Amino acid sequence: MDESFPYLIAIDGGGTRCRFAMTSPAGRIEVMLGSANVFSDRDAAVQTLVDGLGALAGRAGLPHSALSDIPVYAGLAGVTDAKVASEVADRLPSRIVEVEDDRRSAVVGALGTMNGSLLGVGTGSFLARQYNGEIRFIGGYGPLIGDEASGNWLGLQLVRRVLLAMDAIAPHSPLTRDISKRFSDDPAEIVRFSGVARPAEFAEFAPLIISAAKDADQVAVEIMQSGADYLVAGLRALGCAKDEPICAVGGVAPHYADYLPSEMREALIKPKGTAVDGALLLAGQLAERAKVEAE
Amino acid sequence: MDESFPYLIAIDGGGTRCRFAMTSPAGRIEVMLGSANVFSDRDAAVQTLVDGLGALAGRAGLPHSALSDIPVYAGLAGVTDAKVASEVADRLPSRIVEVEDDRRSAVVGALGTMNGSLLGVGTGSFLARQYNGEIRFIGGYGPLIGDEASGNWLGLQLVRRVLLAMDAIAPHSPLTRDISKRFSDDPAEIVRFSGVARPAEFAEFAPLIISAAKDADQVAVEIMQSGADYLVAGLRALGCAKDEPICAVGGVAPHYADYLPSEMREALIKPKGTAVDGALLLAGQLAERAKVEAE
Repeated sequence: MDESFPYLIAIDGGGTRCRFAMTSPAGRIEVMLGSANVFSDRDAAVQTLVDGLGALAGRAGLPHSALSDIPVYAGLAGVTDAKVASEVADRLPSRIVEVEDDRRSAVVGALGTMNGSLLGVGTGSFLARQYNGEIRFIGGYGPLIGDEASGNWLGLQLVRRVLLAMDAIAPHSPLTRDISKRFSDDPAEIVRFSGVARPAEFAEFAPLIISAAKDADQVAVEIMQSGADYLVAGLRALGCAKDEPICAVGGVAPHYADYLPSEMREALIKPKGTAVDGALLLAGQLAERAKVEAE
Repeated sequence: MDESFPYLIAIDGGGTRCRFAMTSPAGRIEVMLGSANVFSDRDAAVQTLVDGLGALAGRAGLPHSALSDIPVYAGLAGVTDAKVASEVADRLPSRIVEVEDDRRSAVVGALGTMNGSLLGVGTGSFLARQYNGEIRFIGGYGPLIGDEASGNWLGLQLVRRVLLAMDAIAPHSPLTRDISKRFSDDPAEIVRFSGVARPAEFAEFAPLIISAAKDADQVAVEIMQSGADYLVAGLRALGCAKDEPICAVGGVAPHYADYLPSEMREALIKPKGTAVDGALLLAGQLAERAKVEAE
């Protein structure tokens, strides 16, 4: 039997939105829906995925049953291990499907097939290096024990520095004074906030830190440099070579450019494409493998 | 009207147990019950407090109604502000009652009326200095943004160092290798553990760190020194004078002795008494104030 796949589907599922793309002989169709985190709410996430696939089929003028034979690559936030991935894959109306976390599609989207490294830094963080088609990941261990340099991490460092300054253990800066004032100069208000704030809320401090650091605020500069030091150490641990490109993706990563050593700053390139583009490339590879297996 | 108070009651209410003491002309009676955290479970905590007061009355051969006129000082874990304190106070069968968090009774128990400082470091942490009868507190902002040097903090630092070593960002030591092995050398297992572990579970790593540091494990020594640096900075911020005593109370605090500068190490003294002893002194002061107000 010879299978060929004129259609491919890619999903980039994140905590705030979920992007769906389908390529066909007639072109590319995209659909955007709300959040889909298979870790925090599995059923709702699967429903979003099924809805998005249905919407793609509808837009393409295909019957829902046609989805079964279209290869799907899904890079989803909250896929913590292979068991979760296969449980989600089993619930999709697709016969040829690969579900992973959302890091590989980010790397392949940004670098295509080039050798290079990726700094993925938004509310969370991870690092990756693609070399001769193999990708190695480090970091990304979540808001409590990992995600160094991330937006959440920046916010946490700032709040800690504000408390240390209030206690006269570390010096104040214009930024820490401003944050202290927002909490009525009352440590108990900061403790209350921190008891309920999610990582995305701590990450809302990131733009303030980035901007204050540009104005040479001492505390902000120290926090940014400390995040950058982690990223540099991570790139070195990945074996990032001098002539290889580095992509900085996510809301926070590009803002570390000024804090990197010059050879890394000069290696920064614009990403080739988005995570959805990466997921489409990976769907193509999945289709190739399915073809070979069918022959 | 002249009020005198032959009886006094003290409560030291913590996350793992709740101690009650009553002094009377006939001597001292003590009762111990389970945990009472008015933050995490208000109703259960109040019930424990009422039960303990009833038990004291029973042991002393007093009718339950007698409790109303006995001054009670309660230092309770989880009292985050004055509103919580007064809500708890209102639900006790006592007319003359003061409810606070559990830090003041620890200070007064350890130092009596002496000038001096306190390092309160167990699962959480705080610092205090008593000077001419006034107590100033710093730190103790909880497991996410504060509690530096605490058992929970030590455990978090260790887990982070293990992940950095697994990623080849920081060096391994015998301790980090041992912990890595406990998690099958799999970062995902550490992430899973950390997603559900409470501070007390992170604090279970503290004895391992303390012991490894004694054996000169490089990572353990760095973590202990970093905790000690916070405590030293805190003591200096409190204005701790050279000739003033320092008490180290809680399961972790005494283990920092070897990491303090020599003048602070030499200032360490054994606590005069426990937090219950402190609460009894504070109940006595409460009784004095009630007497003055009644006159």
